[in-house]
Amino acid sequence: MKITLSQLSFHTGNFEGNTQKIISAINDAKALGSDLIVFAELATCGYPARDFLEFEDFITKAEYSILEIAKHCFGIAAIVGSPRRNPVIEGKDLFNSAFLLVDGKIQQTIDKTLLPNYDIFDEYRYFEPNSKFELIHLNGFKIALTICEDLWNLNDNPMYLTTPMDELNKLNPDFVINIAASPYSKTQIEERRLTLKLNSLKYQLPIFYVNHIGAQTHLIFDGGSCVYDNNGEGLDELSYFSEETCSYKISNTTVFRVEPIQRSLNGLSIRNKYEDLENALTLGIKQYFLKLGFSKAILGLSGGIDSALVTYLAAKALGKENIWTIMLPSKFSSDHSIFDSEKLAKNLGIKNDKMEIENTFQSFLETLSPYFAETSFGLPEENLQSRTRGVLLMALANKFGYILLNTSNKSELAVGYGTLYGDMCGGLSVIGDLYKTEIYELCQYINRKEEIIPKNILEKEPSAELRPDQKDSDSLPPYEILDQILNFYIEERLGPIQITDKGFEGDLVRRILRMVNMNEWKRWQAPPVLRVSKKAFGPGRRVPISGKYLS
Amino acid sequence: MKITLSQLSFHTGNFEGNTQKIISAINDAKALGSDLIVFAELATCGYPARDFLEFEDFITKAEYSILEIAKHCFGIAAIVGSPRRNPVIEGKDLFNSAFLLVDGKIQQTIDKTLLPNYDIFDEYRYFEPNSKFELIHLNGFKIALTICEDLWNLNDNPMYLTTPMDELNKLNPDFVINIAASPYSKTQIEERRLTLKLNSLKYQLPIFYVNHIGAQTHLIFDGGSCVYDNNGEGLDELSYFSEETCSYKISNTTVFRVEPIQRSLNGLSIRNKYEDLENALTLGIKQYFLKLGFSKAILGLSGGIDSALVTYLAAKALGKENIWTIMLPSKFSSDHSIFDSEKLAKNLGIKNDKMEIENTFQSFLETLSPYFAETSFGLPEENLQSRTRGVLLMALANKFGYILLNTSNKSELAVGYGTLYGDMCGGLSVIGDLYKTEIYELCQYINRKEEIIPKNILEKEPSAELRPDQKDSDSLPPYEILDQILNFYIEERLGPIQITDKGFEGDLVRRILRMVNMNEWKRWQAPPVLRVSKKAFGPGRRVPISGKYLS
Repeated sequence: MKITLSQLSFHTGNFEGNTQKIISAINDAKALGSDLIVFAELATCGYPARDFLEFEDFITKAEYSILEIAKHCFGIAAIVGSPRRNPVIEGKDLFNSAFLLVDGKIQQTIDKTLLPNYDIFDEYRYFEPNSKFELIHLNGFKIALTICEDLWNLNDNPMYLTTPMDELNKLNPDFVINIAASPYSKTQIEERRLTLKLNSLKYQLPIFYVNHIGAQTHLIFDGGSCVYDNNGEGLDELSYFSEETCSYKISNTTVFRVEPIQRSLNGLSIRNKYEDLENALTLGIKQYFLKLGFSKAILGLSGGIDSALVTYLAAKALGKENIWTIMLPSKFSSDHSIFDSEKLAKNLGIKNDKMEIENTFQSFLETLSPYFAETSFGLPEENLQSRTRGVLLMALANKFGYILLNTSNKSELAVGYGTLYGDMCGGLSVIGDLYKTEIYELCQYINRKEEIIPKNILEKEPSAELRPDQKDSDSLPPYEILDQILNFYIEERLGPIQITDKGFEGDLVRRILRMVNMNEWKRWQAPPVLRVSKKAFGPGRRVPISGKYLS
Repeated sequence: MKITLSQLSFHTGNFEGNTQKIISAINDAKALGSDLIVFAELATCGYPARDFLEFEDFITKAEYSILEIAKHCFGIAAIVGSPRRNPVIEGKDLFNSAFLLVDGKIQQTIDKTLLPNYDIFDEYRYFEPNSKFELIHLNGFKIALTICEDLWNLNDNPMYLTTPMDELNKLNPDFVINIAASPYSKTQIEERRLTLKLNSLKYQLPIFYVNHIGAQTHLIFDGGSCVYDNNGEGLDELSYFSEETCSYKISNTTVFRVEPIQRSLNGLSIRNKYEDLENALTLGIKQYFLKLGFSKAILGLSGGIDSALVTYLAAKALGKENIWTIMLPSKFSSDHSIFDSEKLAKNLGIKNDKMEIENTFQSFLETLSPYFAETSFGLPEENLQSRTRGVLLMALANKFGYILLNTSNKSELAVGYGTLYGDMCGGLSVIGDLYKTEIYELCQYINRKEEIIPKNILEKEPSAELRPDQKDSDSLPPYEILDQILNFYIEERLGPIQITDKGFEGDLVRRILRMVNMNEWKRWQAPPVLRVSKKAFGPGRRVPISGKYLS
């Protein structure tokens, strides 16, 4: 039997585009003599379709897509993820299903049992969980067809009362297929491999795994579809961060054997975490622009490391000719801010202009002078400079069809060290899920061969330059400390006592946690943040603004 | 047996405050000779606590609160909603529970069976559903204790496979207690009453119902705790939009009888939908400020109906002395904008200042002139004026400790007729869940006795006044049409064909739906919107920015 794994990028709600892509892959696989082609979870409608799933109309389109696709399944079978209406008038209205298409028809549907409903996942919002277990039969093989989370109920504190593979295994399958929509994070590749390995070992079954690649708003899908043997070994793997289709010949004479068609088995690739991170962020930018129909990005260059990194990533994603950076110095800006920014722009070969904010800033102050006259220079005046910059950048973006990229990092988003409607402006937050210390690490990686990001940018002390001689360290602890405390609070969800027990000063811990909580109102209005950690700001982290916990 | 219903306002995460409030109510009820006092769902931690529930620390605090409260339960029993750790190391880590406290101890816990996971609800994110059913026994009565949604699985297409009251009814209870966290919407009071009535009729049992009052960020809880007899009749009701505690004597000699203590049975109140709406929005503002520790609101007065309504509501919520309005006219502003705004401020007795934006606007244009020189005046210049106003208002808010109130309405938020970082600024969107036509209706209601909102504001044609002689109707259909189409799309989740079938022009429907979809990116960054409909912009409506559906 020949089986093809098709790892494609889908566009949420673009049924015509997704369907054509699927049909075209089916035709290609058929030409190769494949017996079965497998697509990812919810391939017809894209993942996550979120509340679009609540529209009758949307589901009808998905059903129509499946019927269209089925028409091309003669001489080849296909497994396609798509929503399915619950025929029972009780429970949720939909199932998250895998459709087995054979001979132009829907031969069988398998529904997802375990519906993730944590972090960025909301599947129980839309779907009824499956509770009956059956295999699919194809070319003499009995296959346990599962959907993403169905393989994930493994750890010491399993989240679900049912483990679908325990049930399916009772029916003696020959191998497992899993269709997935498993988003990237810095730790996800390792966790996903471990999960597949543990399933392969536990059930002593080979696994064929197909994931999405691409990005949908804040979520990045990294692909890495793969094949495991029946003994925990990763036999082969498709690429990360790009589309790929690969066909295998499987046989079951005495032992189950997998042979790739058109190349040899590669095993699992060796990952470099910075390379993956860079590719993930690049893909996130690229697809955000592509899917919104934009091609050009604008951003402010401060001379600091955050805007430097975003510029580099944007140029990589969109092409250097599509990036426009603007330097917006004030009287508090240092000379090196301009010099370093110009050097970066030169290194990257991008357009870089300068715009003064002083006149407009003064004009604001003059308008405000009847009220501000008796007060001293403080945070409101700092914000005013940042907002003047935001307005200018948005004006250029609006006028010339650019998307403004936001350059906030996770450390500053966490403690509120940024101006809402100022430097927090932008259509997409590129590095809002990277702590400052991680940004340094990633830049070091980018500079591993040559100085792309000017060395001085990496070496100077971080500063917002909104008042004379300002340094981040005036109001924040060193980032090495801050980021660890933030990570314990945000990613690990530890409370103040538990974090203090990790060896940090109690008062400092409480002060930082209080800052995080007091700034929920700002983050509520932040742009979408490309998610690269297991807990990013945005839809995966839901915290009340008016809550008093710790504040 | 004497039973006390305690309808209180809790603050999410404020365990100390909530616990003290609960204990004080217990002591008062005990002094009245009450045998049982009932508090709302998740009373210890507040509702919704959202991801705070994922902190061990937070749950430990809730557990401690329950133990503290139990110490006061001698001579009186209490039912208190609080999260409970799942003792089984499988499934979700928590239950959403009702604790029965008797003789200083936890006598019994009843867990919630039906976990709402739609619209603004995310309960399956945190809680494991209950699956075993038992009554509580108290003073010779057998009581079916249920939690909010547990009574709601009634309609033609029930969302859950289990109906808890069907199970509990088999155990022959004498009456039902339901503890709830049921947020207000324009239709919720009616739906809630119907639900209680249908339960009372179906099971032929009296119901004692306790709801939250108060507001948590975007959600408003209206109270309306009540007592139903065993035949669908509402016997008595606590107040809406304010705290109240009421005690009843129940007896079961031949027929079950309920007598209120200290007053007579009132039946159900007659509601006025505009009065409720006004009270809901007022409570929403009031508690947002209270819970964040602010007392003063600032907002821009345009001379239009939206800012007029928000000013009126804010003055009602916070006191006229705590409101500061600013008029920010441009050269495109009409004379009546100033005149009408001044009249409104006079009618309400609030501080109203004027600030010119022309100089700063010109300064922006001058800075941008190297790029804008060859272009004609358009949307970017309109946005620039709006953003200049936003920056000035934020500067005043930041300097003097005000929260800027946002005045966007639902119609304009829907179609993107507003400037991000401009008129979309603000800490709280007060009327962002009211369509423009509803805003007119509410203002007419407010003016029912005297002209509070100047007549001219209600009668003039809506305009953003960002270019000469601009009218909303230049780019939008009449609000009577627009709002109906939006309602079908947003609240009813109908697609373009279904809406066209309702009698609207197909091209217009598609154009409007496309505008809604293309502006998801703006709404992602909108302030929290006080929810008063069954589908508000914000956490209850989750739509991808980069989705292609309909765009």
